[in-house]
Amino acid sequence: MGSEEVGNRQIILNDYIKGFPKESDMSLKTSSIKLKVPADSPNAILVKNLYLSCDPYMRNRMQKTEGSYIEPYTPGTPIVGYGVSKVVDSAHLNFKVGDLVWGRTGWEEYSLIKDPETLIKIQHTDVPLSYYTGILGMPGMTAYTGFYEVCSPKKGETLFVSAASGAVGQLVGQFAKLLGCYVVGSAGSKDKVDLLKTKFGFDDAFNYKEEQDLTAALKRYFPNGIDIYFENVGGKMLDAVLLNMNIKGRIAVCGMISQYNLEQPEGVHNLFCTVNKRIRMEGFLVFDYYHLYPKFLEMVLPLIKEGKITYVEDIAEGLESAPAALIGLYSGRNVGKQLVVVARE
Amino acid sequence: MGSEEVGNRQIILNDYIKGFPKESDMSLKTSSIKLKVPADSPNAILVKNLYLSCDPYMRNRMQKTEGSYIEPYTPGTPIVGYGVSKVVDSAHLNFKVGDLVWGRTGWEEYSLIKDPETLIKIQHTDVPLSYYTGILGMPGMTAYTGFYEVCSPKKGETLFVSAASGAVGQLVGQFAKLLGCYVVGSAGSKDKVDLLKTKFGFDDAFNYKEEQDLTAALKRYFPNGIDIYFENVGGKMLDAVLLNMNIKGRIAVCGMISQYNLEQPEGVHNLFCTVNKRIRMEGFLVFDYYHLYPKFLEMVLPLIKEGKITYVEDIAEGLESAPAALIGLYSGRNVGKQLVVVARE
Repeated sequence: MGSEEVGNRQIILNDYIKGFPKESDMSLKTSSIKLKVPADSPNAILVKNLYLSCDPYMRNRMQKTEGSYIEPYTPGTPIVGYGVSKVVDSAHLNFKVGDLVWGRTGWEEYSLIKDPETLIKIQHTDVPLSYYTGILGMPGMTAYTGFYEVCSPKKGETLFVSAASGAVGQLVGQFAKLLGCYVVGSAGSKDKVDLLKTKFGFDDAFNYKEEQDLTAALKRYFPNGIDIYFENVGGKMLDAVLLNMNIKGRIAVCGMISQYNLEQPEGVHNLFCTVNKRIRMEGFLVFDYYHLYPKFLEMVLPLIKEGKITYVEDIAEGLESAPAALIGLYSGRNVGKQLVVVARE
Repeated sequence: MGSEEVGNRQIILNDYIKGFPKESDMSLKTSSIKLKVPADSPNAILVKNLYLSCDPYMRNRMQKTEGSYIEPYTPGTPIVGYGVSKVVDSAHLNFKVGDLVWGRTGWEEYSLIKDPETLIKIQHTDVPLSYYTGILGMPGMTAYTGFYEVCSPKKGETLFVSAASGAVGQLVGQFAKLLGCYVVGSAGSKDKVDLLKTKFGFDDAFNYKEEQDLTAALKRYFPNGIDIYFENVGGKMLDAVLLNMNIKGRIAVCGMISQYNLEQPEGVHNLFCTVNKRIRMEGFLVFDYYHLYPKFLEMVLPLIKEGKITYVEDIAEGLESAPAALIGLYSGRNVGKQLVVVARE
């Protein structure tokens, strides 16, 4: 190793995009990198990327926007996202060669990370490492904080979650079941619906693409109304949910994936329900809650090991498959948490 | 008095309506009434109505809807609303002849109230009696609970209130100023804007009808963003506000008067801001907070007497003027709290 220079394959964002992202919006490029932190980068670390996470929010970074919570990507440079990586060289006191970390990294084989303070060291390796892109990473924390910190859930309440088989949704439903809620999820295929009912133990589930009238569908699944909605999709589904919410209901707004590729987001018409039914609708970002990560691990690790919670991953092999894996999120091609294996060790 | 039978003029809702209410949707009818609680109405009271309140929510009762927090009116019977009344006869232990009360009553000269438990006895008469339709009644409690219980306001924060010179808005702004917030209001005429700036002490105000671009207007008045929005109007204004909200902002949804007469409410497009900015948007109804009324009076009565808070009323004379006064709300014809004097004592 040392100052050895190696090829470094990278997934580059070609330019800012509009509408649905396409594979051709990204390109695979090979540059070279020395596997050593350069002298002019104190505190940096050099990592080998093992698993990369494909997450819906990334679409928002592919366009030039103002006022987002996160800045747009820089065209011509690698995509940035969450990943699991192994430290190859370190100029930072907290990290040593061989450490496994998860956090923001580049879509490339090796990354120089100049501000590694936000990375989290992986202490528990008796679970699949890839889990740190999902259940034990950002999506897991998102489900945990959204459900426990924003939804104010109570045993016996009814919960609806959209995009329910996704990285976050599958966990929200399982957390809610563990608490004693009645849980229904929506997803976009028969396979996903089956997964929700059989593997994740949801009380019920439906394929939103097969419903002409979402309001009527929700009324069928929630004859007594919805107490909690975990919002992942936005648009028409939100409108239908508002009509089916109960008094003092809560809507945790995690994301609105159905809207990310539209030039103009769809209008939501039934917001007066928030008055009628005294609904609290609250958006949240997982970044505000990372101080809860140790508490989260303490809860979730035993649940995984005891088999009380399961997690389904959709694993794409090889960095070159990353663009297709990412854009597949927006047509719902993934079944479970979408990730990419760059290397297994 | 006693069993004397008198004429009782009433404002009748002719039929359920669609779109904007018109004067001709209501009619003045004279029936007769004995000024005595009938023997078959134990616990009822008979009241003479003095002041009637015109409130935006009443529109929602003029149509046949399901699942509202309050049931539709019954066509062919008098409109029901808040008012100030004087007890003329009582079969209820808690009320005696001569008592002044405020609460739900009929749009008529005399009303038989069969369930007077929800009425509140007026104990303080050293303020204008009509105030119990406004600052000391439902709208006052609405402003108080919406601001203090839902907005989570802090000194130094910025607050925007729409329909700001109305029954609720004028108080929200004054409460916020008393707490040390920066307050801007919107209204629909130059006179109202002047009122906000001179009489109510708002930091600034604007006429929304003169703004081509509400988003730009709000950016002008809130260069550092909006921390709190007190929502009275809905639709386009809400969309513009969402774009101007600050991180961790709060939106208390009190009403959406711009939407009440539309067949299909306008779509709100910028709800993803709730995620981006972690916004809490919460609807509320004053009915949930009446237990706070004594605490509210304790705060507000001294403020009125010391001139630290003012209240502007728009007073229509005579029961026959009530339909025009009510429909005037939806075109913003009223300046301040709209009420109707039926009798002064």
